[in-house]
Amino acid sequence: MGRGNVNKQSDLTPDSIVRLEAGAVVLLDQRRLPDEEVELRCESAVEVAEAIRTLAVRGAPSIGVAAAYGYALAAERGEDLDAAYRALAESRPTAVNLVWALEQMRSDPSAERARALHEEEVEHCRRMAAHAVALFGPETRALTHCNAGGLATGGYGSAVGALRDAWEEGLLAHVWVDETRPLLQGSRLTAWELEALGIPHAVIADSAAAHLMSRGEVDCVVTGADRIAANGDVANKIGTYGLAVAAAHHRIPFYVVAPTSTIDPATATGAGIPIEERDGAEITSRFAARNPAFDVTPAELIGAIVTEEGVHRAPYSESLPRVVRG
Amino acid sequence: MGRGNVNKQSDLTPDSIVRLEAGAVVLLDQRRLPDEEVELRCESAVEVAEAIRTLAVRGAPSIGVAAAYGYALAAERGEDLDAAYRALAESRPTAVNLVWALEQMRSDPSAERARALHEEEVEHCRRMAAHAVALFGPETRALTHCNAGGLATGGYGSAVGALRDAWEEGLLAHVWVDETRPLLQGSRLTAWELEALGIPHAVIADSAAAHLMSRGEVDCVVTGADRIAANGDVANKIGTYGLAVAAAHHRIPFYVVAPTSTIDPATATGAGIPIEERDGAEITSRFAARNPAFDVTPAELIGAIVTEEGVHRAPYSESLPRVVRG
Repeated sequence: MGRGNVNKQSDLTPDSIVRLEAGAVVLLDQRRLPDEEVELRCESAVEVAEAIRTLAVRGAPSIGVAAAYGYALAAERGEDLDAAYRALAESRPTAVNLVWALEQMRSDPSAERARALHEEEVEHCRRMAAHAVALFGPETRALTHCNAGGLATGGYGSAVGALRDAWEEGLLAHVWVDETRPLLQGSRLTAWELEALGIPHAVIADSAAAHLMSRGEVDCVVTGADRIAANGDVANKIGTYGLAVAAAHHRIPFYVVAPTSTIDPATATGAGIPIEERDGAEITSRFAARNPAFDVTPAELIGAIVTEEGVHRAPYSESLPRVVRG
Repeated sequence: MGRGNVNKQSDLTPDSIVRLEAGAVVLLDQRRLPDEEVELRCESAVEVAEAIRTLAVRGAPSIGVAAAYGYALAAERGEDLDAAYRALAESRPTAVNLVWALEQMRSDPSAERARALHEEEVEHCRRMAAHAVALFGPETRALTHCNAGGLATGGYGSAVGALRDAWEEGLLAHVWVDETRPLLQGSRLTAWELEALGIPHAVIADSAAAHLMSRGEVDCVVTGADRIAANGDVANKIGTYGLAVAAAHHRIPFYVVAPTSTIDPATATGAGIPIEERDGAEITSRFAARNPAFDVTPAELIGAIVTEEGVHRAPYSESLPRVVRG
């Protein structure tokens, strides 16, 4: 693995987030944002898996794309493809896009196939955003959690893509950005993206969201997803569930924006989604800590799930199967 | 103001948290815990007010006690007592104990009166804890937010005092400690106190609380309070309200443990409690941030309010006035 400085575009292009070069998958190292914009070169599938495990690249669609490039790299280098598949598939447990992307690559492990998959994910973000705009009224003050932006999706963004389009349509007044402890994807990544896009925003402590709702300062909540069960239960970054409970209490709509590659028809409900437990030292190195990285939001708390195919409503056990690929 | 190292007792005595010496109020500097145990010497009422404003001493009862000592110091030094009163009263806006303690000192601004007030607060903590034990069943896994321990109350603790007594009675299995962003009073102060007391605990990201509730891992929530309105609405550290909403959603009891000095009969409801907005740089120095330091939990989400007088239940507009002093 190697590192280099980036001459960063003011726009976050798909290639700047993750790309395949001769002999390497090159990633923008998301652990070091926003202070440093440096790239990480991964020269084998195992190095890509390590980059995924250590969160150099994160966000369900982005790790799917990185895994596809890692698999293509393994094929190019003549690595054992079964071993490459296993290393990549096991690098994170919760997101289903990872395994979905690897399945897409099995029959054609070429660089071209991986690049097409990347382009499709970005195109799906644009379509999701176009669909999601229908959910925004005038002067919307939206709240988002973690980072479901270009960084998380290989370009453009799912939840942040929806906010971008709403902003361009003149429907968005302000974005509240949960800082998203323990790894601060909101205050490090989403605020950085919104600043580059010129969208008005303010970071808040995660625990301030319910307070702002009670004061009438939040019109809707928009998040991405790491995995969506067949019944519409959504696994996403820890804290999403509490936001949905608080939104329901205040009768504020809660929306999920995610590509169909995030839907897992093989998992009936959220109870079947594995929740990654990460090292407690991400929270505190001095005292005992418990660090679940995701939680599950039950379908009944979700006002709409937006994919590239459209805006889906409850009952999700009927609306989701219609849009799942394959 | 001066600083010195502390030869810290393994037990957190009232005097080690705040005391009046010849010519100075001496405080354990809570900003530097748990890494360093150092004392701060405040040699005028203005210096005590500054220590309160900058959170060297925090927690509603502790700042009341510190203000009482600051006022006694001002009297001893022959300062203008009206100016001392104003400086101390205006150092933080949300807690009512501050003004309450100063009112107690007006007629007798002596060191003896301040020490008696401090002893009373600690004695009230012990009585609150004894009352609160009735709320714990066997093997309780409690969740707490911020620090309502000895540090916050001049000794023993309100919510943590209740946990201490429940532990000694064999009723407490485990404590989940919200880290409490942005200033981490949970992971810095409460975990430090619980460790010293030998009570099993783990720190969690604030946003993980609802997830643990959904998994059946939380039996009750116990917090302190900064101000309690006449109708039972409770202002406390930002995040308390979201916890109460999540607890109600999961039918988990939510308890507040606080001395009667925290009850403000002059404020009819939570809507009348000023919410301190602190510097956004406490959350992020790089991006715009909004940083409300407290929130209000409406009375209907609170299962019981415990004071030194007993366990009070709804309707609080009837049960609280009976116990308010004066």
